[in-house]
Amino acid sequence: MAAPLGACPVQIGQYDRVVLGHGSGGRLTHELITQLFVPAFHNPTLAALEDQASIALDGVRRLAFTTDSFVVSPVFFPGGDIGKLAVCGTVNDLAAGGAVPRHLAASFILEEGLPLADLRRVVESMRAACDEAGVSVVAGDTKVVERGKADKLFITTTGIGWAPEGRRLSIAAARPGDRVVVSGPLGDHGMAILSVREGLSFQTELLSDCAPLGGLAEVMLRASPSLRCMRDPTRGGLASALNELAAASQVGVVVREPAVPVRPEVRGACELLGLDPLYVASEGRMVAVAPAAEVPALLDAMRGHPLGRGAAEIGEVVADFPGKVRVQSSVGGDRLLLMLSGEQLPRIC
Amino acid sequence: MAAPLGACPVQIGQYDRVVLGHGSGGRLTHELITQLFVPAFHNPTLAALEDQASIALDGVRRLAFTTDSFVVSPVFFPGGDIGKLAVCGTVNDLAAGGAVPRHLAASFILEEGLPLADLRRVVESMRAACDEAGVSVVAGDTKVVERGKADKLFITTTGIGWAPEGRRLSIAAARPGDRVVVSGPLGDHGMAILSVREGLSFQTELLSDCAPLGGLAEVMLRASPSLRCMRDPTRGGLASALNELAAASQVGVVVREPAVPVRPEVRGACELLGLDPLYVASEGRMVAVAPAAEVPALLDAMRGHPLGRGAAEIGEVVADFPGKVRVQSSVGGDRLLLMLSGEQLPRIC
Repeated sequence: MAAPLGACPVQIGQYDRVVLGHGSGGRLTHELITQLFVPAFHNPTLAALEDQASIALDGVRRLAFTTDSFVVSPVFFPGGDIGKLAVCGTVNDLAAGGAVPRHLAASFILEEGLPLADLRRVVESMRAACDEAGVSVVAGDTKVVERGKADKLFITTTGIGWAPEGRRLSIAAARPGDRVVVSGPLGDHGMAILSVREGLSFQTELLSDCAPLGGLAEVMLRASPSLRCMRDPTRGGLASALNELAAASQVGVVVREPAVPVRPEVRGACELLGLDPLYVASEGRMVAVAPAAEVPALLDAMRGHPLGRGAAEIGEVVADFPGKVRVQSSVGGDRLLLMLSGEQLPRIC
Repeated sequence: MAAPLGACPVQIGQYDRVVLGHGSGGRLTHELITQLFVPAFHNPTLAALEDQASIALDGVRRLAFTTDSFVVSPVFFPGGDIGKLAVCGTVNDLAAGGAVPRHLAASFILEEGLPLADLRRVVESMRAACDEAGVSVVAGDTKVVERGKADKLFITTTGIGWAPEGRRLSIAAARPGDRVVVSGPLGDHGMAILSVREGLSFQTELLSDCAPLGGLAEVMLRASPSLRCMRDPTRGGLASALNELAAASQVGVVVREPAVPVRPEVRGACELLGLDPLYVASEGRMVAVAPAAEVPALLDAMRGHPLGRGAAEIGEVVADFPGKVRVQSSVGGDRLLLMLSGEQLPRIC
């Protein structure tokens, strides 16, 4: 039995109402989770703030369990749609924890008036993503709300998978001297969504990188026996992933900005819109931390996988400035990479 | 790999767009599920149309897995709120499958502008329901959408639990001669919601029956070693639960209407609004089918549990008219109890 949360009304930071920033994946999301949800539901599994819960099962395996709601707008975007995203996002949270994704539950909230042709297209896309990821949808639910009470459709997917005993990946496991790697160029998903919303057009169309990362994660686990952790840098981008890691492991992280892979068209779109690519969401990339000695084999293995061809080492873990992330720019200066504050790109996933 | 679903656009029955009835829990929901979701995600677990998926785990236990989105309006209602409902609804789907509910994932879709005091009240209510049900929320997610793109908050809960090997409850397991029992008066939840929405007032306030049924289900499993199945009669009420059972087991079901417990105030409100209580949702009741010989012990055991005091035998399973449900009224006539068609009570859960 947890302690009562205290008397209402509540305030978190300066807010007494939900603002878009509470869904940003940045500082406000973190405050909402740590100040409201974690105290209410208090248990060590939830409080670990991993992207997936790990439940003891038997002597040999652990069960990994994760959930995500998807509210992306527009529903269809270059390189994917809400259905593909709903499968990949949940599969990737399991994969990042070192688990083999196996089963999904999918729950739909539909707005009255949604064309059934759109729903079918989304569902077919989910099925294709499931086939690619090697998972099956074994449970589901459908609710319908009146026109104007939702926005076309929202999908919540919950995944379960098996994690082998003996491997414990955790954002609390990074140690000074470890290296940070990413599996490919960052920010494609966020900028693909934004380019549609803002009506931007580029010589090369920006496509979401949305993809299921279970296979890549398996390759990484084999190549780096002491791999510390993996995270898919979705909402809040690389900046959020590394800040959460730095806080949980009580280490500092140094990122060498010129080493971070970003496509020229993504960089260009970011400049046009005044955004920092280090904060922009990817939906088919993995960030990982590994001991320095294992990084050459890890990068080799990643580059041999279709979804890891652009893998690169981008920084390192240090003992200085625990809990903080610093970026060394190409011109030699360096700056603190804070968690996203406020909302940069609402409804990116 | 499933076969393609065919070319878009689609039509299901007379509809090419989502209508409120697709969320009713009745015939249109059934058509949407069987004609769109099941073919797309085709696998035997989903196609069984149980309220929970059953996954082989090891030689001793099975994993039960279920998901539900909650969009009830109003968010706070007499006897509960969307948070309590989100915990009980999912716990009850696990319990109905004979599983012991253990872990929940909770995903929130919040509308910009929602008072944080409301969110805290909902979350505290979830926590209290979790404590009562013996489950913990171990994974979660929060998304925020712009004002006017959702209705205050939607919650999706996904539950996992353990089912002992050797007990297989299924809506396909009913046999002629079996009896149908319910755990208490039906329709309290639906009429509590509707009375608030319609501004009805009664001498006695109508309270939702929303409650976690894991403990009651355990008692029932012990008392009836050959218990065929349990279902919580939520959306679509007793009528939907029994029609799904009749179809899955290919049996007929006869319901003796005077034996069905319904509170006088619920019956009165139904008459006022032209509703049939057999279609109105409960959120803390169990319907079960058991061999006739086990029914006396089953009813005794149920009545000894605080949530089963009003337990009653209400009908029986027959070999005639397979797939259909007939109701014998108090005046001697009888009628076919069809699945709900269209939408009776939108956003009841």
